[in-house]
Amino acid sequence: MDPTVDPSVKSFIAVTADSHFPLQNLPYGMFSPTPHDEPRAATRIGDFVLDLAVIQNAGLLDAAGLPEGVFSHYVLNPFMELPTAQRRAVRVLLHGLLRADEPTLRDNEVLRGRALLPADSVTMQFPVGIGDYTDFYASREHATNVGTMFRGKDNALMPNWLHLPVGYHGRASSIILSGQDVVRPSGQTIPPDQETPVFGPCRLMDFELEMGFFIGTRNRQGEPVLVDNADENIFGLVLVNDWSARDIQKWEYQPLGPFTAKNFATSISPWIVTLEALAPFRCPSPAQEPAPLPYLQENNRGTFDINLEVHIQAEDDSEGLRVTESNFKYLYWTMAQQLAHHTVTGCNLNAGDLLASGTISGPDKNSYGSMLEISWRGT
Amino acid sequence: MDPTVDPSVKSFIAVTADSHFPLQNLPYGMFSPTPHDEPRAATRIGDFVLDLAVIQNAGLLDAAGLPEGVFSHYVLNPFMELPTAQRRAVRVLLHGLLRADEPTLRDNEVLRGRALLPADSVTMQFPVGIGDYTDFYASREHATNVGTMFRGKDNALMPNWLHLPVGYHGRASSIILSGQDVVRPSGQTIPPDQETPVFGPCRLMDFELEMGFFIGTRNRQGEPVLVDNADENIFGLVLVNDWSARDIQKWEYQPLGPFTAKNFATSISPWIVTLEALAPFRCPSPAQEPAPLPYLQENNRGTFDINLEVHIQAEDDSEGLRVTESNFKYLYWTMAQQLAHHTVTGCNLNAGDLLASGTISGPDKNSYGSMLEISWRGT
Repeated sequence: MDPTVDPSVKSFIAVTADSHFPLQNLPYGMFSPTPHDEPRAATRIGDFVLDLAVIQNAGLLDAAGLPEGVFSHYVLNPFMELPTAQRRAVRVLLHGLLRADEPTLRDNEVLRGRALLPADSVTMQFPVGIGDYTDFYASREHATNVGTMFRGKDNALMPNWLHLPVGYHGRASSIILSGQDVVRPSGQTIPPDQETPVFGPCRLMDFELEMGFFIGTRNRQGEPVLVDNADENIFGLVLVNDWSARDIQKWEYQPLGPFTAKNFATSISPWIVTLEALAPFRCPSPAQEPAPLPYLQENNRGTFDINLEVHIQAEDDSEGLRVTESNFKYLYWTMAQQLAHHTVTGCNLNAGDLLASGTISGPDKNSYGSMLEISWRGT
Repeated sequence: MDPTVDPSVKSFIAVTADSHFPLQNLPYGMFSPTPHDEPRAATRIGDFVLDLAVIQNAGLLDAAGLPEGVFSHYVLNPFMELPTAQRRAVRVLLHGLLRADEPTLRDNEVLRGRALLPADSVTMQFPVGIGDYTDFYASREHATNVGTMFRGKDNALMPNWLHLPVGYHGRASSIILSGQDVVRPSGQTIPPDQETPVFGPCRLMDFELEMGFFIGTRNRQGEPVLVDNADENIFGLVLVNDWSARDIQKWEYQPLGPFTAKNFATSISPWIVTLEALAPFRCPSPAQEPAPLPYLQENNRGTFDINLEVHIQAEDDSEGLRVTESNFKYLYWTMAQQLAHHTVTGCNLNAGDLLASGTISGPDKNSYGSMLEISWRGT
């Protein structure tokens, strides 16, 4: 076992059993100590953020041979684009530094005070300069549900769906940090049984439960990524909410796909969880029948068992309501297949590019990943 | 008349009558004096490029109050995002500097030697850091031709087409400079009358004759651009070739639009022509029936009369063949309408974002803007 995911190793920072941020996670994000400070990179442990710029400046990451100031940029990209082995070395160093039996940081009160800040005292910032954003449609259950609603049960999946991970290019500029307000969009919609569109505020605003992964190592234009090497290009994962104006989408999406119905905002979570941290949650992914073409066949096919929930909370409602329990493992097309297909004709992906899964629906009603499906088109 | 487009004013640099670069044009681009030098910004006059970093450093643009080093960045973005009035002031200063009757540069042999370089001695560089790329489908003739081929004459235009400028998000990372090689893509295609796809090199590689415009002034997320203000957000225009693998596109494009069939490469021309330079070519654009919704209605509707040609030249063919004569003015949806629609739900556009027109086809066979149409699907 990779020692950085050994659950028996504890940190000198107290971490509660239900925390998302044990010593085995160590995600990456950007934060500002106060809203006026320049953003810098961090990892998180329990209820604290660890300022990576301070740790690097203290010489505690020297063994990784990092470029100077790599954590002091306004986004994580300079770190993300480093060779995979170098990024993994940083994880090992951070894990070692935070262990309960390692005195370097634990016993240095001055450094601890500067490097470890209470998470509730800092402002999380947008973590990545996203060059391009791609959204897939990789959940068989979601594609079947949507297809059934719009084309009937017998034509639910398009003929290409079982042969390739369907995807489309999304809008990078409007991706925002989770928690940031979204302005209710206005646009064109077509009233039922009419032929002329009207203009007005969206009446069918929807969420889409997705996960996304960021590219670390880039590939050159004209040089596809091989499916079995794809993990080397992946930096880590975030939660994604692909806000969708369903009434606008319905009218505009043919023949070239969703446009203004989705380009006003997409939310991502502030912490990026690495593949190394997810390794213990590796599990099988759905069997594929028919077998895809060889460039999409994986020698070591698998995915990750990640429970996902959606809660809706009105402003005057302190409790909220859980509307979905789904799981990342349901996806038919894996991240490696998405990456291999995205680059098959030669498209170049750069550090910081985001590839999202599409709505992650499970096999039953309690696991549907969008209100479109949960309400079955409002019926 | 804006004096910078007065055809009677000449430069001290000799410009032939058929040159694309008279004193009235003054486009922007990036170049390197030798392939080893850092890129810097330039304009062009006749057969010379004018190094704008040298001109700024000599103090000759001081009246525009530009930020230091604005032309010494590796892309034009820092200049593009300046207020429109400031960019226009630079144009006036450059025009004044290059006039035949203005001695400042004309009679300063040392400065001329440093600032004016033969165009055929320099290397043009990619001009812009493109954040997001959007491709429209704004030619009625093109949409009708493609629709007729795929759905028959009676259903050629989708119901939404006459009500909104259909568009989709494209791939920014793979946009390259005109002249750069494109690797022939391989991908999934479906052989005629079969149900199972095969993998192999594209056999139906196509061009698409397009023009694109770059955003200068950005709009904030949640704040749509009004159609009558759209010109203020436009920096200038380039030629675009939207390379398309038709056989791959045919199999993959439903229901979310083209993906790997177009994301391997898109070519743009190196010089960006400003709206100010195009003003003398302003002309009416096609009447719209039915009238669009108010947010797409222009008080001063118009476009530009720009002749466009496509030539195909094989490696062993010194002459080449002209296959198309089209015109930018044929587009049904104007740039202002594209911009207003793109932002209607609140999408933010940033300096350097590229919005392309889609294939520009004219009314007859000689003006079709893609081989798909010229060959009428290979028939």
